[in-house]
Amino acid sequence: MFIPHNLSPRFQVPLALADMGSLFVGGRDISIQDQPLVEIDVNKDSGRPITIDPTGQYHVEHMYCQFFAPASLEGRYPLLLWHGGGMTGATYESTPDGRPGWLSYFLHRGWKTYLCDAVERGRSGWAPRDHLFQEEAPTQVAKHYAFERYRLGPSYASGLLYPGSRFPIDCYDQFIMQFVPRWTNTNHATVDAYAALLEEVGPSVIVGHSQGASLAFQVMARVPHLVKALVAVEPYAVAEAGQIQSIAHIPVLMVLGDRMEEHPAWAESKRRSLAFLDAFAQNGGKGSLLDLPAQGIHGNSHMMMMENNNYDIADMIQQWLESQGLTGS
Amino acid sequence: MFIPHNLSPRFQVPLALADMGSLFVGGRDISIQDQPLVEIDVNKDSGRPITIDPTGQYHVEHMYCQFFAPASLEGRYPLLLWHGGGMTGATYESTPDGRPGWLSYFLHRGWKTYLCDAVERGRSGWAPRDHLFQEEAPTQVAKHYAFERYRLGPSYASGLLYPGSRFPIDCYDQFIMQFVPRWTNTNHATVDAYAALLEEVGPSVIVGHSQGASLAFQVMARVPHLVKALVAVEPYAVAEAGQIQSIAHIPVLMVLGDRMEEHPAWAESKRRSLAFLDAFAQNGGKGSLLDLPAQGIHGNSHMMMMENNNYDIADMIQQWLESQGLTGS
Repeated sequence: MFIPHNLSPRFQVPLALADMGSLFVGGRDISIQDQPLVEIDVNKDSGRPITIDPTGQYHVEHMYCQFFAPASLEGRYPLLLWHGGGMTGATYESTPDGRPGWLSYFLHRGWKTYLCDAVERGRSGWAPRDHLFQEEAPTQVAKHYAFERYRLGPSYASGLLYPGSRFPIDCYDQFIMQFVPRWTNTNHATVDAYAALLEEVGPSVIVGHSQGASLAFQVMARVPHLVKALVAVEPYAVAEAGQIQSIAHIPVLMVLGDRMEEHPAWAESKRRSLAFLDAFAQNGGKGSLLDLPAQGIHGNSHMMMMENNNYDIADMIQQWLESQGLTGS
Repeated sequence: MFIPHNLSPRFQVPLALADMGSLFVGGRDISIQDQPLVEIDVNKDSGRPITIDPTGQYHVEHMYCQFFAPASLEGRYPLLLWHGGGMTGATYESTPDGRPGWLSYFLHRGWKTYLCDAVERGRSGWAPRDHLFQEEAPTQVAKHYAFERYRLGPSYASGLLYPGSRFPIDCYDQFIMQFVPRWTNTNHATVDAYAALLEEVGPSVIVGHSQGASLAFQVMARVPHLVKALVAVEPYAVAEAGQIQSIAHIPVLMVLGDRMEEHPAWAESKRRSLAFLDAFAQNGGKGSLLDLPAQGIHGNSHMMMMENNNYDIADMIQQWLESQGLTGS
C-alpha cells in the first residue's frame, strides 16, 4: 500500500497557532436500568476479568470538535468544517495523496477553525447500549460504492476514472479508509449537536460538505442569529420553503462539482440547489453559485476538497468569504 | 453543562508547525459475497432512497493517525501517542477543563507527534459488515464505571473524589464523552496497525497509556528495531518473559499514579510493572520507574494526562527522554 504522507509538501510558510485542543458539545444523559452484572476481560489477554455493572448513567449523541486558533486571526468569526455522510473530520485534513487539506488552508488564512466529527461518527463515539440507532444496521462504504456514488468514474470494476478526473486515484485506499459506519436516523441528533456547538462558540461561518451542508440548512433555521455564512459543498438537500425567510439574511455560497447531471441523484441535488438559490433571491437572500464546470473548471467529483485543485477551490471560497466582509478586523 | 474551552489558557508561546495532517495505516481488504441489493435512504429525510449493492470489497482494521510537525524539531524521532482502552486520541488533546494536553506539550518541546486512534476506535472506524468483532457486543463506559475504575474516588454515587484528587471533576462530562464503544478481541488488529505505523514512519518513541502501553510491549517485541523508547503510563500488562531479551536495548520509563494498591486490579498491574522492571534489568535493560506517590506527588489517578499537574508529569517524561539522548541534533 502506498502511503504518501512522508512525501507531502511541508507548508511553504510555518503555521503559528495560539491554541489547539478539542471539546465535546451537546448530547444527553440516559439511564440504563436493571442490567445483570457482566464479567468481562476488557483486555482479553490480561487473564484478569473484571465485573462490570452496566446499570447506570451514560452520555450519548454528543459531538467531538477539534479546534485550532491561528496566532494571527484574519477571520472575523470561527469557521466550522462539517464533513459528509459516513465520514469524519479527516475529510479536511490531508488529501489521500498526502497534500494539505482545507483545514490547513483555512488556518493559514487566519480562521479559528473547528473540525467536527458528526454524532455517532469518529471521535464522537456511538451508543451500543441504548439501542438508539440499532433499529437498523449501520452501513459501511464498499470500495465500489464510494467510487461510483461520488463520481470518480463510471464503474469501479473498470478502474477507469472519468477523463480529466482530478481525484488522486493512486491513493484510493487512503480515501476509503476515511469512511466509518453510519446510520440513517441520526440527523436530528446531529442537528442538535451542531446547534449546541454554535451556542457554545458563538456566531460562526459554516463550511459543510454533502450531508454536513444539508444539515447546515436545518441548523441555520434553528439558530439563524448564530450563522454568519454558509458554504454548501454539494448538499443533497437544502432549506425547506418555510425556512427560507428566516435565513435570508445569511449569505450562502453553493459549490458544485462536475458531471452532476450524469447521475440521477446528483442531478436532482443540483436542481434543488439551483431552485434554492432562486427562492432565496426572491426572499432577498444573498446566494452565490460556484458551479465549477460552468466556470470552465472540469474534473471535480463530489470529493473536491481532496482533488488536485483543492487549494484553488479553497481560494475561491476564501475570496467569497472576503467579499462578504467576514475577514479583517 | 459547563464547557470550558473558551476559558482555556492560550499557549504562552505560539506553536509554529511546519506540517500537519493525517494518514491511515495497516488493515486489510475483505470481500463480502452474494449480498442482496439494499434500498436505503442514506439521508432518511431526503425522500430519495438509493439502491446499494453491499457485495464487494471493504477495508477493515486500519488505523487513523494525525500528525503535527513543529517547525523547529528537537525530538530526534517521531513521538507516537497511544491512548487507553475505550478512548481515542482525544485523551491527549485538551484536558476536560480545557487546558492544553500532552499533545500540545510535546509539540512545544519540538517532537513530531502522531496522535493515533486505535483500530475500531474513533476516526479509525469499525466494521459492521464483516462481523469481525460482533461475536460479542461492544461495551460502552458508564459514568460510574470510569469514575471508580480509573480511581477518581471510591464511589460515583457518593460523588466524592479521593482527598487530594487532581482530577477536574467539575468537567466530568467532558471526560466521559471521550469514551467510545470497544470490543475486547481487537488487540491483535491494533498491534498489527501499530506495527504498520512504525514501518511507515520509522524509528519512533512511544508514549502509551493503559491499553496503549500494554500493547506497545507487544509491538516492541514485533519490531524492536523501530522503537527508540517506551513511556508506559499505567499499563495493565507488560512484556512476556520470552520477549524481554529481544527488547532489552530499548529504554523504558514506567509511570504509575496514586492509590494503585487500593484497587486489586491496579495493585496487580503495579506488581507486574515492577516485576517487569526487575526482569528487564536482569536482562541488561535500561528501565526507569516514575512512581508518583513514591516521589511525594499524590492525587493522580489513572488519567494523569488530564489532571491539574499534567504538564509537571510531562516535564518529568521529557527530562527522561532527554536523559536517554533522544533530543537535540
